[in-house]
Amino acid sequence: MRVTVLAGGTGAAKFVRGLVRVVPASEITVIVNTGDDLEWWGLHVSPDIDTICYELAGLLDVERGWGRREETFRCRDAMGALGEPAWFSVGDLDLSTHLFRTGQLRAGEPLSSVTVELCRRWNIAPRVLPATDDRLRTIVTMDDGDVGFQEFFVRRRHQGAVHAVRFEGAASAKPAPGVIDSIASADAVVIAPSNPVTSVGPILAVSDIGAALGATPGRVVAISPIIGTAAFSGPADRLMAMRGLRTSAVGVAEAYRPFLDVLLADSSDHALASEIEAAGAKPCFTDIRMRDAAQAERLARETLDAIAR
Amino acid sequence: MRVTVLAGGTGAAKFVRGLVRVVPASEITVIVNTGDDLEWWGLHVSPDIDTICYELAGLLDVERGWGRREETFRCRDAMGALGEPAWFSVGDLDLSTHLFRTGQLRAGEPLSSVTVELCRRWNIAPRVLPATDDRLRTIVTMDDGDVGFQEFFVRRRHQGAVHAVRFEGAASAKPAPGVIDSIASADAVVIAPSNPVTSVGPILAVSDIGAALGATPGRVVAISPIIGTAAFSGPADRLMAMRGLRTSAVGVAEAYRPFLDVLLADSSDHALASEIEAAGAKPCFTDIRMRDAAQAERLARETLDAIAR
Repeated sequence: MRVTVLAGGTGAAKFVRGLVRVVPASEITVIVNTGDDLEWWGLHVSPDIDTICYELAGLLDVERGWGRREETFRCRDAMGALGEPAWFSVGDLDLSTHLFRTGQLRAGEPLSSVTVELCRRWNIAPRVLPATDDRLRTIVTMDDGDVGFQEFFVRRRHQGAVHAVRFEGAASAKPAPGVIDSIASADAVVIAPSNPVTSVGPILAVSDIGAALGATPGRVVAISPIIGTAAFSGPADRLMAMRGLRTSAVGVAEAYRPFLDVLLADSSDHALASEIEAAGAKPCFTDIRMRDAAQAERLARETLDAIAR
Repeated sequence: MRVTVLAGGTGAAKFVRGLVRVVPASEITVIVNTGDDLEWWGLHVSPDIDTICYELAGLLDVERGWGRREETFRCRDAMGALGEPAWFSVGDLDLSTHLFRTGQLRAGEPLSSVTVELCRRWNIAPRVLPATDDRLRTIVTMDDGDVGFQEFFVRRRHQGAVHAVRFEGAASAKPAPGVIDSIASADAVVIAPSNPVTSVGPILAVSDIGAALGATPGRVVAISPIIGTAAFSGPADRLMAMRGLRTSAVGVAEAYRPFLDVLLADSSDHALASEIEAAGAKPCFTDIRMRDAAQAERLARETLDAIAR
């Protein structure tokens, strides 16, 4: 069974942690959001690719959900002491990834090739693809103007009114090599429990990816990142409301309506069954929290079971 | 009394440690070798500028003679684990300097301006100038071909036959702003106890610097980096021999013959007095080892006394 996952960061990493216990690694492709990418201290940082790769390499700080375990932040602190911005926490181990990636990009390698090379060096068996090799940036419009995603998410701790979210560069961005094929040839496309607006949104904004999801003979299943009316973490609920989506599992079905076959929602949201169905997806209910690897494995299994039914 | 120092790394840092205890910081200019500079992990590293600045900022690892105190090397180790070169030891704190410098250089700032800015942020009062803002690289010809200075010095631990040393870019390199003025207006120009070939050599290879030393009304004094026939540290003795210089304090006087007024040599080399004189410099003898700040201070005082006489 070939499985392609559309992934943001933390939530997707948890799901992937379970998936690799259920499906052979060689059958898994993870297409990752690059709208969060940023230039930081002159280095190209791809936070979601790193979170997914660190997870698959066994390097992720699982407690925190991002960055590397046993990390230190001495360079960041020295940058701060030097009067340079230090609000985006790049760790000392983490820096090696950004230095390597930046060097390869400067040498002319596309992001997808650099990601392949990182996966090779980290012995990561599943295929990890950026949604696009082209420049794509999630821009958040706030009261005082436009800010980059990390400025909104990290520096401002996603506080403050958001008036709009757009994906700079999306109109001309092409899917990275392998992205469309991996969707077209998948038995299942799983949209991980990530923020529909700012994690999955940038992936869908890349030309042809939405169409490929609509055309794939495989089944498309999403796992809700929302229980009741609240996101597991982060601003997904507020951003969905801003986009006119209901802040519930129903809104998730709405967000993916053109191509979604099945929505996995939390058992506590069973009352939303008919609304989810009205939004075009077959609802399935289970405990969608992933507190540990065993729960992630169970959720991965149930996700694949749900589309097999 | 205005003092300008020609400086390499470790030995020069020791001398400067003493000098700032003897002369007001505002009267001191340090002109630093940039032939050791390298691109490492895509960052511009200026090892000698960093050693001098870390010393003046109180950040230097005095025991080791380079890098920052309380340093860690976690990023370097992670780079090594990733299969990237890790033989040049960039520390986690040290990385902040290289990231900042590289960012400023990429934004179009010359190295001298970046150095001024680093000094400002570190509250360094003496003026620190790179010998040149232009690209200058010390290249060492060995049995298997040409290697960069750090490849020779660090990676190969200065082992192996050296057939030639040249300074790539020197022919077209111009002195950085302030360099010629600081020599012309100095009461004393002190050539620190650095390697005459690979630390002071690149400075002298920059056009007009040698001529400025010859023309300055101030006195030019050098401190020998050699006692007997052995360098304090590093390959100065072997490189001097390769250049046809005697491997003793006499060879140091020879190396600086066109402009040297006074040579400070170790008391144990007193027998070389007439040979030093024959090489064109007035010899002065004292204990030239600097084991601690007090000895460095004494040596700085005796250096200035020697030219006052």
